Amino acid sequence: MKKYFLFIALAFVSCTVPLPAVVLQTDFGLKDGAVAEMKGVALSVDPSLQLFDISHEIPTYNIWEAAYRLNQAAPYWPKGTVFVSVVDPGVGTDRKSVVLKTTSGHYFVSPDNGTLTLVAKNLGIAEVREIDEKINRRKGSEQSNTFYGRDVYIYTAARLAANKVSFKKVGKKLPKEVVSINYQEAVLNNGVIKGNIPVLDIQFGNIWTNIPDSVIYKLGVKYGDSLQIEIFNNDSSVFKNTVPLAQTFGTVAEGNSLSYFNSLMNFSLAVNKGNFSNTYKVYSGPGWSIKISK
Amino acid sequence: MKKYFLFIALAFVSCTVPLPAVVLQTDFGLKDGAVAEMKGVALSVDPSLQLFDISHEIPTYNIWEAAYRLNQAAPYWPKGTVFVSVVDPGVGTDRKSVVLKTTSGHYFVSPDNGTLTLVAKNLGIAEVREIDEKINRRKGSEQSNTFYGRDVYIYTAARLAANKVSFKKVGKKLPKEVVSINYQEAVLNNGVIKGNIPVLDIQFGNIWTNIPDSVIYKLGVKYGDSLQIEIFNNDSSVFKNTVPLAQTFGTVAEGNSLSYFNSLMNFSLAVNKGNFSNTYKVYSGPGWSIKISK
Amino acid sequence: MKKYFLFIALAFVSCTVPLPAVVLQTDFGLKDGAVAEMKGVALSVDPSLQLFDISHEIPTYNIWEAAYRLNQAAPYWPKGTVFVSVVDPGVGTDRKSVVLKTTSGHYFVSPDNGTLTLVAKNLGIAEVREIDEKINRRKGSEQSNTFYGRDVYIYTAARLAANKVSFKKVGKKLPKEVVSINYQEAVLNNGVIKGNIPVLDIQFGNIWTNIPDSVIYKLGVKYGDSLQIEIFNNDSSVFKNTVPLAQTFGTVAEGNSLSYFNSLMNFSLAVNKGNFSNTYKVYSGPGWSIKISK
Repeated sequence: MKKYFLFIALAFVSCTVPLPAVVLQTDFGLKDGAVAEMKGVALSVDPSLQLFDISHEIPTYNIWEAAYRLNQAAPYWPKGTVFVSVVDPGVGTDRKSVVLKTTSGHYFVSPDNGTLTLVAKNLGIAEVREIDEKINRRKGSEQSNTFYGRDVYIYTAARLAANKVSFKKVGKKLPKEVVSINYQEAVLNNGVIKGNIPVLDIQFGNIWTNIPDSVIYKLGVKYGDSLQIEIFNNDSSVFKNTVPLAQTFGTVAEGNSLSYFNSLMNFSLAVNKGNFSNTYKVYSGPGWSIKISK
Repeated sequence: MKKYFLFIALAFVSCTVPLPAVVLQTDFGLKDGAVAEMKGVALSVDPSLQLFDISHEIPTYNIWEAAYRLNQAAPYWPKGTVFVSVVDPGVGTDRKSVVLKTTSGHYFVSPDNGTLTLVAKNLGIAEVREIDEKINRRKGSEQSNTFYGRDVYIYTAARLAANKVSFKKVGKKLPKEVVSINYQEAVLNNGVIKGNIPVLDIQFGNIWTNIPDSVIYKLGVKYGDSLQIEIFNNDSSVFKNTVPLAQTFGTVAEGNSLSYFNSLMNFSLAVNKGNFSNTYKVYSGPGWSIKISK
Repeated sequence: MKKYFLFIALAFVSCTVPLPAVVLQTDFGLKDGAVAEMKGVALSVDPSLQLFDISHEIPTYNIWEAAYRLNQAAPYWPKGTVFVSVVDPGVGTDRKSVVLKTTSGHYFVSPDNGTLTLVAKNLGIAEVREIDEKINRRKGSEQSNTFYGRDVYIYTAARLAANKVSFKKVGKKLPKEVVSINYQEAVLNNGVIKGNIPVLDIQFGNIWTNIPDSVIYKLGVKYGDSLQIEIFNNDSSVFKNTVPLAQTFGTVAEGNSLSYFNSLMNFSLAVNKGNFSNTYKVYSGPGWSIKISK
């Protein structure tokens, strides 16, 4: 009898513990079949895999935005989730293909081109391994030079999630570091905070900075207080005004500006029921900076 | 032996009866990571949940369109499906967060801001409960004021679908009503039908009205007959012409206008292989109305 | 005891062998609820179905692009996968609704309007059956004329994937052929290759031809060699230049043109970190052709 119950117990386990999710991010868009090719490869590895998406609308070749979106979404997913990010302007050059395991227990499959800058910093590096393409490459894809997303990255991610390759067998261990993009961190000096505008909350035209609430509170301000804000595109001043720190959008009239902490608890700017970015021609990127004082 | 079979029976049940689907709708778009944050929270509640989407392209803050899309899609989903709609211009104000159970057996998690107008009317209100955030809020999110979609709505929807909270434990029972948007219902007087153009069939530029086939048939018309159509943007006449009632698009020449019953069996207008909306500058919303006679 | 183990064995099978995936493609876009209506119907057939998407951004009524995208993605999915394509300008006319089984073991549910041109050619026709709407039509949809995608196609695809209808019961067997679109195949004559530009790699503005690497190699060229390229929009020459055949984008300077083999191993053109299509006003379709020589 015992062997039967072992058999049954296995059935039980295979049913009730679903495989870790595989979560995709690319700059491919969804107008063609490229993302579907990747998903087909994943399902061919294991048809019980669950596949999800962050965004496939990362602006073409924009590694910084890839880094930002990955860092925005990843912390909310369960341990063991395998992320695949394919924003890869250097495909075919000597940039490495890696899997990063973070101390938070998440896996990130990506070219090591800066995409991992923020998750490495914020979730911590547990281990980095270089993908060994001799083992981790879709059969029959050896002739193709240009679609690593399909032939290497999703294939490796799917096999990792489906436990068909162990993390150790992905490839050789690398030093505990990833290629990182330089960016202006948030600083407070003599009562003036400086920081960067890494991205917009694009759907609503809100301005997101990299300045956490804790730095703002060091100015000794509370909800309802006014802040002096100046925004620069490189050296030219684009916006200069006094804006209240609001707990909710509804505390200012429609069309008025406010500052608030976004869902990542970073300092942000919005127009209530409007679009701050369009109204004031404020955009995001390494060249955009902000100065805040009381 | 009996206890073993109980165990086996449970395994059987947990395998063959999948959890109810969770279906998301927002005005967030898919360019950033916001929807992926929500989905990560859902998978963290239960990794075996199946997640789907209606649309994340609801125009920003457009509660009416949110109501329309929810009502369009929901009836086709199985009983027990949990819908989450986050179009929430009043976030942070005193609008309530609710779960509506309809008499059709579907659940709707949403701010009670008008989004539930049409599903409440068409699927029937079985019970409305206010979400008690003391119980139904993602751990660690207490400081954040601005992302109810992630911290309250999807968290509650996922727990409901995964049976980790019962409908009763969502929060206190409210009166059997939801906040409803006023809209012009379809009426027939003296041989003239009046109605509203709630939305476009945007991909094809077709005009969808809220006038059901049964009202049109009261004019005594049949397929092939001509109808007098006039369309108004508030008080100004935008389109006035005679249009046949067609059973299929192919019965009129390419580029010609026709009227038909859409997949919801509502009166609609199209240009065969063309775009009625672009051609005649006819759009949708509360200010757009239509007059139909024989 | 035996009957219990049969029961257990069934449980095991139903758990560990997931149902075949159902993969959708339409020209509906994702702004309204149409795709979600289809998915709801599929889940109502069997709540354990896994649903995926190729694209819902096929340009309206563009059967050729539907054919191309289906052919691009399908080969990467497991045998048994059921594809549903709804690009159906002839809805309501006498075009047939069919299920194609390819010799590769994939199923394609579609109007027989040209959409199946390329998968039939490249994956091989095993059998074609006409959908018998008396059996394969969603209950309650008999009055609706206009949404075959929801009422017939996805319903049939879901029942096929969930094994609730056998392929034989879909409807009567048709001859081994599908409606096919004429297109210029790649030819080599007297050292000059002619071919078609079926689609763009739209996200990056790259030009994809239908000319396989094997035909290019017959010119006796290797990576690094120059090729004479001329591109025509019908009879007018739009682009004429010498372009290197590059193994990787990184071998030419930023902003320079190159030719390469795409992930389908077809001859393609790109600007390194730029957009060939926008730069040179080269687009795709039946009227666009290319001439290549050494």
